[in-house]
Amino acid sequence: MRHHLPKILLFSGTVFCALNPAFSQSILGFDAAGTQKEVALETKFDQQLKAENLRAHMKRMSAHPHHVGSPFGKEVAEYALGLFKSYGFDARIDISYVLFPTPKTRIVELVEPTRFKASLVEPGLKEDATSGQTKEQLPTYHAFSADGDVTAELVFVNYGIPEDYEALEKMGIDVKGKIVLAKYGNSWRGIKPKVAAENGAIGCIIYSDPKEDGFFQGDVYPKGAYKNENGAQRGSVLDMPLYPGDPLTPGYGATKDAKRLDHKDAPTIMKIPVLPISYGDALPLLKALGGEVAPASWRGALPITYHVGPGPAKVHLKLEFNWDVQPAYNVIATLQGSEYPDEWVIRGNHHDGWVYGANDPLSGAVAVLEEARALGELMKSGWKPKRTIVYALWDAEEPGLLGSTEWVEERQKELEDKAVAYLNSDSNGRGFLYAGGSHTLEKFLNQVARDVTDPQRNVSVADRLRAKVLVDGSPKAKQEARSRSDLRIGALGSGSDYTPFIQHLGIASMNLGFGGEDGGGEYHSIYDSYDHYTRFKDTDFSYGIALAEVMGRCVLRLADATVLPFEFQNFANTVQQYATEIKQSVETLRMQADDHNKLLAENRFQLAADPKEPFTQPEPKSTVPYLNFAPLDNALATLEKSANDYARASNGAEKLSTGDLKKLNEILYKSERYLTHPEGLPRRDWFRHQIYAPGFYTGYGVKTLPMIREAIEQSNWTEAEAGIMRVSETLTNFAGQVDKAVSLMK
Amino acid sequence: MRHHLPKILLFSGTVFCALNPAFSQSILGFDAAGTQKEVALETKFDQQLKAENLRAHMKRMSAHPHHVGSPFGKEVAEYALGLFKSYGFDARIDISYVLFPTPKTRIVELVEPTRFKASLVEPGLKEDATSGQTKEQLPTYHAFSADGDVTAELVFVNYGIPEDYEALEKMGIDVKGKIVLAKYGNSWRGIKPKVAAENGAIGCIIYSDPKEDGFFQGDVYPKGAYKNENGAQRGSVLDMPLYPGDPLTPGYGATKDAKRLDHKDAPTIMKIPVLPISYGDALPLLKALGGEVAPASWRGALPITYHVGPGPAKVHLKLEFNWDVQPAYNVIATLQGSEYPDEWVIRGNHHDGWVYGANDPLSGAVAVLEEARALGELMKSGWKPKRTIVYALWDAEEPGLLGSTEWVEERQKELEDKAVAYLNSDSNGRGFLYAGGSHTLEKFLNQVARDVTDPQRNVSVADRLRAKVLVDGSPKAKQEARSRSDLRIGALGSGSDYTPFIQHLGIASMNLGFGGEDGGGEYHSIYDSYDHYTRFKDTDFSYGIALAEVMGRCVLRLADATVLPFEFQNFANTVQQYATEIKQSVETLRMQADDHNKLLAENRFQLAADPKEPFTQPEPKSTVPYLNFAPLDNALATLEKSANDYARASNGAEKLSTGDLKKLNEILYKSERYLTHPEGLPRRDWFRHQIYAPGFYTGYGVKTLPMIREAIEQSNWTEAEAGIMRVSETLTNFAGQVDKAVSLMK
Repeated sequence: MRHHLPKILLFSGTVFCALNPAFSQSILGFDAAGTQKEVALETKFDQQLKAENLRAHMKRMSAHPHHVGSPFGKEVAEYALGLFKSYGFDARIDISYVLFPTPKTRIVELVEPTRFKASLVEPGLKEDATSGQTKEQLPTYHAFSADGDVTAELVFVNYGIPEDYEALEKMGIDVKGKIVLAKYGNSWRGIKPKVAAENGAIGCIIYSDPKEDGFFQGDVYPKGAYKNENGAQRGSVLDMPLYPGDPLTPGYGATKDAKRLDHKDAPTIMKIPVLPISYGDALPLLKALGGEVAPASWRGALPITYHVGPGPAKVHLKLEFNWDVQPAYNVIATLQGSEYPDEWVIRGNHHDGWVYGANDPLSGAVAVLEEARALGELMKSGWKPKRTIVYALWDAEEPGLLGSTEWVEERQKELEDKAVAYLNSDSNGRGFLYAGGSHTLEKFLNQVARDVTDPQRNVSVADRLRAKVLVDGSPKAKQEARSRSDLRIGALGSGSDYTPFIQHLGIASMNLGFGGEDGGGEYHSIYDSYDHYTRFKDTDFSYGIALAEVMGRCVLRLADATVLPFEFQNFANTVQQYATEIKQSVETLRMQADDHNKLLAENRFQLAADPKEPFTQPEPKSTVPYLNFAPLDNALATLEKSANDYARASNGAEKLSTGDLKKLNEILYKSERYLTHPEGLPRRDWFRHQIYAPGFYTGYGVKTLPMIREAIEQSNWTEAEAGIMRVSETLTNFAGQVDKAVSLMK
Repeated sequence: MRHHLPKILLFSGTVFCALNPAFSQSILGFDAAGTQKEVALETKFDQQLKAENLRAHMKRMSAHPHHVGSPFGKEVAEYALGLFKSYGFDARIDISYVLFPTPKTRIVELVEPTRFKASLVEPGLKEDATSGQTKEQLPTYHAFSADGDVTAELVFVNYGIPEDYEALEKMGIDVKGKIVLAKYGNSWRGIKPKVAAENGAIGCIIYSDPKEDGFFQGDVYPKGAYKNENGAQRGSVLDMPLYPGDPLTPGYGATKDAKRLDHKDAPTIMKIPVLPISYGDALPLLKALGGEVAPASWRGALPITYHVGPGPAKVHLKLEFNWDVQPAYNVIATLQGSEYPDEWVIRGNHHDGWVYGANDPLSGAVAVLEEARALGELMKSGWKPKRTIVYALWDAEEPGLLGSTEWVEERQKELEDKAVAYLNSDSNGRGFLYAGGSHTLEKFLNQVARDVTDPQRNVSVADRLRAKVLVDGSPKAKQEARSRSDLRIGALGSGSDYTPFIQHLGIASMNLGFGGEDGGGEYHSIYDSYDHYTRFKDTDFSYGIALAEVMGRCVLRLADATVLPFEFQNFANTVQQYATEIKQSVETLRMQADDHNKLLAENRFQLAADPKEPFTQPEPKSTVPYLNFAPLDNALATLEKSANDYARASNGAEKLSTGDLKKLNEILYKSERYLTHPEGLPRRDWFRHQIYAPGFYTGYGVKTLPMIREAIEQSNWTEAEAGIMRVSETLTNFAGQVDKAVSLMK
């Protein structure tokens, strides 16, 4: 269910144009001879990949709606199962039983001062072959909304994130007992009804403003790729920052006979009704609002003066759902490792879509299938992976990572023991490689990107991305792209199936794809179709092939490396940067609080305010204390030393004895486990990782060093101090593992 | 014809809340006894001012259209003349004879791919009493457009400023032989057709996008104050950055028998036809454009995808004008000075409007009249000004500062000798004091603002402004508002009648008014009416009174000061800041050029570009040389020393002998003359001031140290070096005058 590209993009080595680049550079974890063999193998792998296969799979798998529980969803799983088997994999379907609500009743109507009933319909288009299959399509709705039947005055709340409610408070506007209308954007959608409910709203409507998602961006579908006035964004509003996966089985597998919560007691199900609408349906509601003119930054691209309300617009919102449990079909395909069968390299993408899901998720899923076929061909020619390779196509990702999360929760012990890394993709488009992941794999990923050629520009995908950063990046990013040999990868929050692997179990993970030259407004609508994809996205599937080349290299190198390609200097450097950011944010907050309180004491806010507009004297801000960052600084110094020791010691480590290599590799791939803590994060113990987490109020967006950062953002100074201690201990323990690896190599 | 507030706002002293503030602080140029007398006089002045007079004058003077040459325009001048006489002024009307084109034919029509004819009409509204007087109103047009009849493909050029044409070039789009459609905003309007013609366009249409001027800002007229879909902005497109005033009599007075250029030879008249239209008329034109989607920053608030073209939209633009010479009636009213009759303090505002001109210019003009009445009352009670006070209401400002410029040009010698300062206002609204002016008057103005009470918040207008800067200013402005006792005033470019005084003759000038809480879209439309003003602007005329209080103090203090209140430390400090800005801009340009050329050599632009979009390899940038700023630094050091010497020496200067005082004051008020140079600026010798000038490509917007700054902006390094020499000499000569003043006081 990925949508926007992460802001931090990836990478590359130095400028570099050799014809067969890999030969001229080493590959992490292989000795010289091994590198040569590996390059040959990867070249052979590439030769197997065929764009027409991607195209055929996408056409086949997007022929009908294939959400979890749909007949064609099962067909898609079985189609993939058959393919994996035909490629020589040991394949099966693992079934979980997950709650999946679908709508029975959807009503949004303006009842005052005029009447208008929202259509809530995405019409079929003659230019889009599948769009007319209205009987099979899920209507536009939010999975895990509450049932509800409410009528109240409407308030426009901008993006509906906490700072918007602060602005409303300054305007003297309270949403208690009201229905709020929020724009999509600036947070994951599930944050909007959660924050609305926290502020006392009784209903929430989310619309796609054409400024962010519609005609302002470009010509609308079917003339262009962007959202037309009828398109609406389905999606989950499950409170995933608390825990993802089946809401009825928190922390354990949703097996057939698992003990289940009543859906009314499930903490991750929204407490108020919420529904997505198109901008065509939103326009009459916004037009009917009175009250203050919305702040300039709140206004969208509709041809109206945006007002905040409340009222005179009054809205009736009625939603009823079928609360059914459905089977989720996770397709699991394995190639047994020849030397380390109990070390698993896992590669996955989901296969369920909200409707046709050509882009999301099939553009990534078809690369998975083609990679598997290419691996099968390598097998036929005699190659065997040293480690076990597990290919997975997850079901029920869209409603809340249900398939992957339940699969992981059910196999927690085994995965903690065996999983070397998890490699995820989701949607894939045209443009630049983006990458998020464990920073211990940053150097590894830089090498992979160095060795794959961009299909449009005939340089490595790394060099193309570096050019983009140098031309369009922030001043800081530009400077780094000149001075740092590796481009940075982003940190992972949530939003796709890597979440349970990295956040719950501490399995090193990566999330990769291409994008940035494939804008559009099809996301989670019936127009995310084969026709749309092949007109506007990766039209010749050349970036699908590029994704398979990148992912194939990742899988092959991780499966066959003599020494697993984890590396700790980049990790140490990046965590150091996160710590610096956090310290600066505390200083900024302190200065802002002091300045605010001074202005308040001097009555400057009132003097500056327009007397003809409502004014509320702001509250004083609590003074920001000085925090003791010394333990964190000490831990970072320890980590840096360990990382440097490892870099020195690991040179030539491929020559260790078989026994030591096995021990070393186990330390390496389990090192990420030491970045978790069994108690997890405050008030959300499912999230155990202490370096990366999705933000409690951003939803997908990552918060690094989350316990410290979120405590500071919420002015919880006691918890911030506790977070510093927790992270410091975590990093020190992690450094201890690195030291253990170092001592093995001495 | 002022429109937007300058970005740099004014000022105040320290926080300060005494009931009668002036008593507790000294007044520049008066000794203790003089200060006490002056405060009493100002208190009496304030007591005369009555809001109902402002209201009655505005209602009367906005009853009909009163542009130059209109019957009611003459009535307005005669009405003012009568008032001045009745107040005890020696009053007369000085007539100039100026070119004032009015339209005979106006046609804008889309001829391909569909047909649409622009209405070009602002309809009357029942909520606006004068709006229906269609026979007397000037239609929407641009004064000093060329005659023309052209048909060509349309290109959307954003704001139509030079950087927009650079962006078009990168897209591979040439406007040669095309008609361009530009948005209002980001430059003075006359720049748009000038730059269009420089780029080879054969016609220009300028529309008001609702993003900057319409429903995006707020509810539209008559529901709210903002521009409705029919409103269009009249205005002059005379090439005023070359020279303002009558285009047929450059540099000399437009007397009845003056030698006149043929209008076809006048260099300031536009070379292509240009017309303003409403966003209602612009929508079908924009909709008909194809080609590339416009860059995100170019898109406005109309409900369309903005495309650049060229075509398929093809437009027919036909314009014909009456090229008539009209009498401009400048109303001049004098109170003879008792001690220094040949030292003139001049206070002015224009009286002509584009149509009813309630805000622009009557909101300022009615304050002028009420100030004059109050001065008359003071005269009746026995007070006489030491210096001569000249009150002026200018005609023909709107078409290009014609009235004031011709009046000044005709009296150049006398004004150079006698003018102490010129005090201008134009439109006046509700909110914060804004001020631009000669920086030698900055401290003076800070004291005046300290002593006038804000009508809404009951603190000084200075303190209210300081609160605004502290709450909403940039970080730099906030910091200065804490650390610097005087708030900075803006530098003057052009856009109102101060221009000939300061820019041509070097008469110290100020431009003052209130605003920031009185948004609207009435500017230069038929809806700038009494009804609009009294609903949405300074509805109770309390800021009209505040303006009279500010201006009255300026006039009284300048007229009666023992030592004229010029001050040089703030001036030196601010010019130092301009020099620093310029040096930094050279460094930035150098870094940008180097970075650009490096990226080009590495082929990064092409690698970063989307292959599916047009791409032109950018040109290399010429290397930025190191400039010799040493002469400027030396001049600034000299100036700083002189300013410091003056500050020390002037303490107690009120005690000098009458003869020395006369000499001192003459040096002081003539010091600004030394900031001009007889050769003026390169390629525009009318503009003689070397510290302030309107930008050649901004129109109204000021460029400080213009010869240096504009040469750098245009990569003319030889001229930049010459500019450094010129400004250095100018500042050194100026410092010499300050030294002369110092030696008088020793």
